[in-house]
Amino acid sequence: MTNPTAAMLVIGDEILSGRTQDSNTHYLAGELTRHGIRLMEARVVADDRAAIVEALNALRARWDHVFTSGGIGPTHDDITADAVAAAFGAPIGIREDARALLAAHYDRSGLDFNAARQRMARIPEGAALIENPISTAPGFTLGNVHVLAGVPDIFRAMVASVLPQLTGGPPLLSQNLRVDRGEGEVAAAFGALAADFPDLSMGSYPFIRAGAHGTNLVIRGTDPARVEQAMARLVALFG
Amino acid sequence: MTNPTAAMLVIGDEILSGRTQDSNTHYLAGELTRHGIRLMEARVVADDRAAIVEALNALRARWDHVFTSGGIGPTHDDITADAVAAAFGAPIGIREDARALLAAHYDRSGLDFNAARQRMARIPEGAALIENPISTAPGFTLGNVHVLAGVPDIFRAMVASVLPQLTGGPPLLSQNLRVDRGEGEVAAAFGALAADFPDLSMGSYPFIRAGAHGTNLVIRGTDPARVEQAMARLVALFG
Repeated sequence: MTNPTAAMLVIGDEILSGRTQDSNTHYLAGELTRHGIRLMEARVVADDRAAIVEALNALRARWDHVFTSGGIGPTHDDITADAVAAAFGAPIGIREDARALLAAHYDRSGLDFNAARQRMARIPEGAALIENPISTAPGFTLGNVHVLAGVPDIFRAMVASVLPQLTGGPPLLSQNLRVDRGEGEVAAAFGALAADFPDLSMGSYPFIRAGAHGTNLVIRGTDPARVEQAMARLVALFG
Repeated sequence: MTNPTAAMLVIGDEILSGRTQDSNTHYLAGELTRHGIRLMEARVVADDRAAIVEALNALRARWDHVFTSGGIGPTHDDITADAVAAAFGAPIGIREDARALLAAHYDRSGLDFNAARQRMARIPEGAALIENPISTAPGFTLGNVHVLAGVPDIFRAMVASVLPQLTGGPPLLSQNLRVDRGEGEVAAAFGALAADFPDLSMGSYPFIRAGAHGTNLVIRGTDPARVEQAMARLVALFG
């Protein structure tokens, strides 16, 4: 059994200008790994319709799932829903169940459910809503594309809403050995070990702490017995 | 005068598995913005030669500059230099000046300049070296592609080495107004203001602090007079 694949598409000028550091990709990566879905690539594009459509169409054709983050709020720069509709050639308009959710929310809050806020009920035809327990305005799934909010707390809540509905593969296991040697000293033996286990992925991550070089050696795979076997060899070499 | 454009390509399984949060893109975004270069897109790909080559060729054809991060160390999973050479169809081998730099470094450190460490002198033909003041192993520029280390301290030092050599455009200015209202309340007037200034980029970033909704309204552009003019209108609306 193999693992389903996914891509992340972060949408927002604020990430590319350096105003905001994206943390959603890192969060999603960890959650997907735990769920047995392999994150294969991530992209960041501007609040630009053509750029969003092009990236979406490239990613949704190639991977089992695409998650997007950002651009589903009430302001003029929130163009993700329309761009997703355009990518799929789907009509888009105010959707009644989404409008009703939002109307009830603003009614409870005593806030005006104005035209800008009603824009957040614009959902492409054929989509399923994704629950937003924090601020109500829903995300949605259309085909294999899951459209989530950019605000990290809401992004995380929406990941929690959608992930249990997706079929995962076997868990992606990872083991780490930290050695007090530079990468250059462990490279030859570690590379030979990696060559002996072509079914596993092995990575080497150097660090400098208090002036001393060290390396984290990581072994990843889905077969627990193979990961253990490789880890035993690694510990014998450098433990 | 327009601004040169750039893309970032982050290379590394550890980012996609959720082990490591990429911080290099955010750092580069800020530095490029200050230097008057527009970061147009960013991608993360795995330590996979075909994925690196494909992303590199897409990005270098489209943007003025491409910066890569990661995969230039001594271990078997460090394949960036070879992938860049493949993308350009350039030969690659041990380069004498890079080898000499590394040999002197390991001689001073009393460490063995072994075959794995010599791999870090593999540089595609026609490239210019990028200085690494922290751990010596150089990055390189080939065509419009700047190949930098993934370790954040070294990435930053290499950005400082290469950026002064690149022609920037007019500085990308940004002004921020924080308002204690939700996005939905400011959306209509802010959208109308954005429509009046099509030469500027305006973005709206909601936050929740201590249970209260607020919004940061950001105006970006290169013409100081226009940014000031729009900011004055914004302050009159919501200040």
